[in-house]
Amino acid sequence: MDRRSFIRRGALAGAGAGAAALASPAVAQDRITWRMVTTWPKNFPGLGVGAQRLADRITAASGGRLTVQVYAAGEMVPPLQSLDAVIDGTAEMSHGAAYYWQNKSTALSYFTGVPYGMTAGELAAWVQHMGGQQLWDEVYDQFGVQGFLSGNTGTQAGGWFREELTGLDSLKGVRFRTPGLGGRVWEKLGATVTNMAAGEIFQALQSGALDAAEFVGPYNDLALGFYQVAKNYYFPSFVEPGLATELVVDKAKYQALPDDLQAIVRDVCQAEYDTVSADFIANDPRALKTLVEEHGVQVRQFPDEILEAGAQASMEIIGELRDSGDEMTRKVTEHFIESLNVMRTRTEGNDLNFIQARAKYFTL
Amino acid sequence: MDRRSFIRRGALAGAGAGAAALASPAVAQDRITWRMVTTWPKNFPGLGVGAQRLADRITAASGGRLTVQVYAAGEMVPPLQSLDAVIDGTAEMSHGAAYYWQNKSTALSYFTGVPYGMTAGELAAWVQHMGGQQLWDEVYDQFGVQGFLSGNTGTQAGGWFREELTGLDSLKGVRFRTPGLGGRVWEKLGATVTNMAAGEIFQALQSGALDAAEFVGPYNDLALGFYQVAKNYYFPSFVEPGLATELVVDKAKYQALPDDLQAIVRDVCQAEYDTVSADFIANDPRALKTLVEEHGVQVRQFPDEILEAGAQASMEIIGELRDSGDEMTRKVTEHFIESLNVMRTRTEGNDLNFIQARAKYFTL
Repeated sequence: MDRRSFIRRGALAGAGAGAAALASPAVAQDRITWRMVTTWPKNFPGLGVGAQRLADRITAASGGRLTVQVYAAGEMVPPLQSLDAVIDGTAEMSHGAAYYWQNKSTALSYFTGVPYGMTAGELAAWVQHMGGQQLWDEVYDQFGVQGFLSGNTGTQAGGWFREELTGLDSLKGVRFRTPGLGGRVWEKLGATVTNMAAGEIFQALQSGALDAAEFVGPYNDLALGFYQVAKNYYFPSFVEPGLATELVVDKAKYQALPDDLQAIVRDVCQAEYDTVSADFIANDPRALKTLVEEHGVQVRQFPDEILEAGAQASMEIIGELRDSGDEMTRKVTEHFIESLNVMRTRTEGNDLNFIQARAKYFTL
Repeated sequence: MDRRSFIRRGALAGAGAGAAALASPAVAQDRITWRMVTTWPKNFPGLGVGAQRLADRITAASGGRLTVQVYAAGEMVPPLQSLDAVIDGTAEMSHGAAYYWQNKSTALSYFTGVPYGMTAGELAAWVQHMGGQQLWDEVYDQFGVQGFLSGNTGTQAGGWFREELTGLDSLKGVRFRTPGLGGRVWEKLGATVTNMAAGEIFQALQSGALDAAEFVGPYNDLALGFYQVAKNYYFPSFVEPGLATELVVDKAKYQALPDDLQAIVRDVCQAEYDTVSADFIANDPRALKTLVEEHGVQVRQFPDEILEAGAQASMEIIGELRDSGDEMTRKVTEHFIESLNVMRTRTEGNDLNFIQARAKYFTL
């Protein structure tokens, strides 16, 4: 009898007679450690914290069989190389936002959020129950990766403006830090749009190189100190109505995991979608209270003229995406529009009316 | 060498030399089967289906180490004895809604939803990030159980009315099927409120014993056929702005589970909160489309006069709950109000304005 078959016989005998003695998982299980690179600074409120919590929850739910080690932006690779790190095998997981990878496919914008597009709830419904995930898989299959929704900021803040806005005229030549598709909307409205990293915004506002800036919302913006220079804080961000984060995994390695570990990764990402959304719902208003009461910030709504022109510009940009010549982007755009048109009958015909009535008539 | 120590020696040798051969989880793990009783009929859209999916996801994520067996309403115990079944040990889990157990504590209403209260997102934020879960634990600790949020219907429909409503006068003497705290609001508005089981509503509408009825929303109501008798479908349900479901577990048995299984139960419940919410966001409007296009249903908004009087009546009822003499209910009421007042600055000052602007200016 060779050593291996001796062991196997012992194990089989154990299954019948003394299984409990074999059950201690620390000894009997294969253990894997996966590296998660992220696009967020360490401890970045809501999002960087969320990436770490997601990793810890996978480790805990798997009893350490799948241990996830987090690397903040720059620790292993620069923030905007997270996806490439998974594609080239440097890491097994990336935590970020799909619209960072528009250079790979313009269709990816939709899985983060587009101007005047879906709220956090609508995006989850589209991805999970209306076929959005299948389209997303089609895009990412080209790169051998798999995406999961893993958080949402909800409707962001519109931005910090040095001067009050009275209408479209106020935007002419305003030097505004606002990136991505949202930036292109503001450009159409007459602003002079630039992008710069989070850490550079404050100084640019202070030196007068910028007249306005938007980042995320009160929860993230409070720490960056913009209120010291620009006192007018505008709501809502009609260009970022619900920004979703993603966990991307190496698809072949993911599919090689046992079924239970695959389920744990999927379930924890979805639980985190709820945790992160709820975190912003609870903590954005707390931070805004501090901004108003301790720092004299003026909370303002965009004039109707800007909201209307912003909607027009957003429709143009979505039309341009659809007609850009990329077949996948056309397909995703059409599916997104069709799904939003179904869901908005509920959001705008039911939810909206409840919140309006509560705002108007209910005070405790 | 006795049989047991022979087996153990085999296992230890395996750990060093051939662990992979011992790793197949089916043989090496302790397995538990838990019974989940529910308050829902089998395959009830959104909620009964959600209870079954939650059970299956726990079974899958645990690799069968915790297998959950579902019993629909009446299969093991009557629907409104689900919680008692967990308390007396007949079952380990109950899937239902906390407000069904108001006879145990009136504080429990808040963990499902109250008239003019929190939306699905606000409720999750309150429970997870503002201390709501700790209060809920305090209530359920008295009964040796632990509650987890496990789904939300979102803002429900206001009800089916045979006649069109022009104002408060239209409600006088209307015989309306609507249960719970919501029913007490409608009573204050002048309706004659009754409760009856879902299966009896249609016949009561048809015979003229009822003038109006509310149940959940389009996704659930479509199957019950109310549109055949009452064509006026009113929105929103200001008395049920977000109805949460719960999973309740035997706390001692839950805490005796290994840490990874505890994490799986917790994570899967939270993932299901998102799945169920998204299911209603996707499928309520699809069902409403069928009701309007195939069954000639008239979608209507409540007159402002009713929304305003409804808010007044809801404030009275929440005041009555607070002052009912139960200390725990007073404490939960005050915490709920304070938390809602923080969060509504965001919901009503940001989210609302985005949805309004989209409804007004954005068409694709």
